[in-house]
Amino acid sequence: MARNGPRRSNRTRREGAAFNQLPWRQVRNTYGPVEVLDEAQIEAIHDASLTILEEIGMDFLHPEALAILKDAGADVESGSERVRFDRGLVLEAVAKAPSSFTLHARNPDHNLAIGGNNIVFTAVASAPNVSDCDGGRRVGNFEDFSNLLRLTQAFNIIHLNGGYPVEPVDLPPSTRHLDCVRAFVTLTDKVFHAYSLGRTRILDALEMTRIARGIDEAQLAREPSLFSIVNTSSPLRLDGPMIEGMIEMARRNQVIVVTPFTLSGAMSPATLAGALAQQNAEALAGLAFTQMINPGAPVVYGGFTSNVDMKSGAPAFGTPEYAKATIAGGQLVRRYGIPFRSSNANASNMVDAQAAYESEMSLWAAAMGGANIVMHGAGWMEGGLTASFEKLVLDAELLQTMAEFLRPIEVNEDTLGLDAIREVGPGGHFFGAAHTLARYEKAFYAPILSDWRNFEAWQEAGSPDATQRANRLYKQILAAYEAPPLDPAVAEELDAFVARRKREGGAEAA
Amino acid sequence: MARNGPRRSNRTRREGAAFNQLPWRQVRNTYGPVEVLDEAQIEAIHDASLTILEEIGMDFLHPEALAILKDAGADVESGSERVRFDRGLVLEAVAKAPSSFTLHARNPDHNLAIGGNNIVFTAVASAPNVSDCDGGRRVGNFEDFSNLLRLTQAFNIIHLNGGYPVEPVDLPPSTRHLDCVRAFVTLTDKVFHAYSLGRTRILDALEMTRIARGIDEAQLAREPSLFSIVNTSSPLRLDGPMIEGMIEMARRNQVIVVTPFTLSGAMSPATLAGALAQQNAEALAGLAFTQMINPGAPVVYGGFTSNVDMKSGAPAFGTPEYAKATIAGGQLVRRYGIPFRSSNANASNMVDAQAAYESEMSLWAAAMGGANIVMHGAGWMEGGLTASFEKLVLDAELLQTMAEFLRPIEVNEDTLGLDAIREVGPGGHFFGAAHTLARYEKAFYAPILSDWRNFEAWQEAGSPDATQRANRLYKQILAAYEAPPLDPAVAEELDAFVARRKREGGAEAA
Repeated sequence: MARNGPRRSNRTRREGAAFNQLPWRQVRNTYGPVEVLDEAQIEAIHDASLTILEEIGMDFLHPEALAILKDAGADVESGSERVRFDRGLVLEAVAKAPSSFTLHARNPDHNLAIGGNNIVFTAVASAPNVSDCDGGRRVGNFEDFSNLLRLTQAFNIIHLNGGYPVEPVDLPPSTRHLDCVRAFVTLTDKVFHAYSLGRTRILDALEMTRIARGIDEAQLAREPSLFSIVNTSSPLRLDGPMIEGMIEMARRNQVIVVTPFTLSGAMSPATLAGALAQQNAEALAGLAFTQMINPGAPVVYGGFTSNVDMKSGAPAFGTPEYAKATIAGGQLVRRYGIPFRSSNANASNMVDAQAAYESEMSLWAAAMGGANIVMHGAGWMEGGLTASFEKLVLDAELLQTMAEFLRPIEVNEDTLGLDAIREVGPGGHFFGAAHTLARYEKAFYAPILSDWRNFEAWQEAGSPDATQRANRLYKQILAAYEAPPLDPAVAEELDAFVARRKREGGAEAA
Repeated sequence: MARNGPRRSNRTRREGAAFNQLPWRQVRNTYGPVEVLDEAQIEAIHDASLTILEEIGMDFLHPEALAILKDAGADVESGSERVRFDRGLVLEAVAKAPSSFTLHARNPDHNLAIGGNNIVFTAVASAPNVSDCDGGRRVGNFEDFSNLLRLTQAFNIIHLNGGYPVEPVDLPPSTRHLDCVRAFVTLTDKVFHAYSLGRTRILDALEMTRIARGIDEAQLAREPSLFSIVNTSSPLRLDGPMIEGMIEMARRNQVIVVTPFTLSGAMSPATLAGALAQQNAEALAGLAFTQMINPGAPVVYGGFTSNVDMKSGAPAFGTPEYAKATIAGGQLVRRYGIPFRSSNANASNMVDAQAAYESEMSLWAAAMGGANIVMHGAGWMEGGLTASFEKLVLDAELLQTMAEFLRPIEVNEDTLGLDAIREVGPGGHFFGAAHTLARYEKAFYAPILSDWRNFEAWQEAGSPDATQRANRLYKQILAAYEAPPLDPAVAEELDAFVARRKREGGAEAA
């Protein structure tokens, strides 16, 4: 195929030289997590969460779930969807979940270790709107969707797709998932996400994942390759479409991330301790349920507790409370020995200083909290209402910076450089020292967005701010984009599946 | 005095209502520092730094320093300014420095505990230029200097003045320090800084500090009330004017902060381990010197290691390397048991997303590194070349956010809120719960700059970005500013001192 032939690849590499990013790598966080709670406080929150499940219970809005839970020994209130859990039952079930696993991509170079000290970053997911400086804010559509996927593929620091970067509302709802998953497979070769919006959509996504990887169902079940975020309907409820996704995914050993939407002051108490107790209750109930479906199924505990603005009820992100809840969430999750998901969240209406500082609060909290998956890693704005092209580039810079911060300092005779210090001596400088020249190219992180020109040079260049630079950069990267190679037989099988399922009418309304 | 009488105060309070900041408090960092180096790596850097002082040595460009060092047992090379230190001598001297102390302000409510788990934030210091959105970037002048001091006084989160926020070059150099220190005393009632630019300026500042506090010299010597940043001329040199300041300050038990300017790749090796070894050597030599002047004099170890852009030689801040060096610096300092100074640094040419993300990198590193004094806390831009009014407001938000993040989560029966969760139950919401209403006002941090209105409301308001909002806010705060009360007798004595010293011609050229 000429498209992926060597001549084109060379050209891409040349064009890409202006875009000097870090190579793909699995980032590890070896510094050890920060602790904002002491042992007794963790136990108090843990204990309160089990009391919530034991005494108040949680609603599971699906008969199949109620049957599974009852079989496993949970107390299902007769004629109701309310389920109460003995604390031993919850903890025994959660203990069956693996502490780490590999998420398989169709390009094995992009497989991801989830858990332990690994940290991976997703692109933005699930925004209804999309925005850039040129076109402003607009409703989600498939063209922007596809361009955001191209950027996700282009940036090495974006390890996986987090979901639809923006909802392509110009595609019919019943077959939208087919076009979107096909776009994930063809425009990227990284791991992707499927929405738990009922049984059919998840089964279609599972089959398309299998086709994309060119494997059989048994191998797919051995090798988790698809993940799905399940949000509880806080307080203390799991909706039917989510439950169907959990059942089909867990049965096939695919990854479920249970993330309570415990916005403090709205869907949970206006205290962090209370919000965390409720988050923990909902997460443990959801996670226990997956292990009742299929013991050992790979799962992730999602922490998303933030607070509302008490004046307006608007959700806020990257706040002091958000950062504390994130790190506390990490401490709770480590008690259960499963991977932890956090986010790169902010509430800004535009790509300005606020977007940057709220995102940094979220990212530092994720890293210091020991997060394994950082959702909405690049491009999330406005509390999730908008996916931004410029924010995606800004975030890629933040993520690369964090990844390099997490790379430990090398200390050895060579790096201590006593000979260089001896050579230069008091009052000299190191620009021309042999020790410096030997490291000229790779001594320090080279940013993609930061502008370190002096004021005069920057002013002569038109005084571009970071957002304007991000705008230029995203268009350059899109212009240089090439789709990753795809076996023509796989493409054909995928197209045939999509065509058949479209003929069949796709999925029921969500 | 009508100026500070009750009627005016009431009016200020009313006007100040639009500016809803956190109350003054001493911030504590109880989360425990992050470690980027292991024990063996710290020892290797520590050991290399002592080898540097033993074998290469450091230049002290002042005969009085050479005499003091020789008397204390250091090896002063004959006919030269080169001083070599036995490692035992250095460590014994540094061990005499106190691990914590109080910095006294003329308003005792603004006294500051330095060391331990305390963290204090200064305003921007030492910029040659000043900038705001209205007037653009201009050379420093006394009017902007004074307005920046007024903001420093207005923000509770700015605990002390860090130096001249901007250099007022419209004042004559020989008497500039007299006008500037008088402005510190009259426009603020917080701790301030004096430059070690020769003996006379420091002696004048010490006398004005004594007058401002209305105390005698003996009490001043018991109560450290003035601090001075001493930068080494890296590599491995201490200049004469700095040395004179160190001698006069340390003799009178005032605070010296020794901060090596070890920019990796320029003034130190292009490796972090090498830059840190050199930083540590220079800091230890300077700190040991203060203890040879006056054992037990209060000192602070300043970490400022960053890297240059290897392409241009331009200094960079808030980089991954900067953040690692900061946290590693904290680990080294704790080995010696003295307070640690870091910075809120960035290299952006304007108040944009870059200014925010580089500052957040610096601030998080300072906090996670256990910094006790964060210099340039509010308003520093462009690698220190510009003090910005809007950046000062932006940073006040970042500092308040960090301070609130550092406030531990309360976990008790009341905050766990099980009764509220019981009351609301699955599927409800917490907006109207008694538990929420009781906390309505103070549940969460209320930002000063973040805009959490929904997109439509924000757009109707003209889509202001964070920088434009900061511009409006700083002008509101200046309009509401009132000078803190000052005893008329003190004001008179201060004026008389300044008048006399001006008649005498002020200080020698720096």
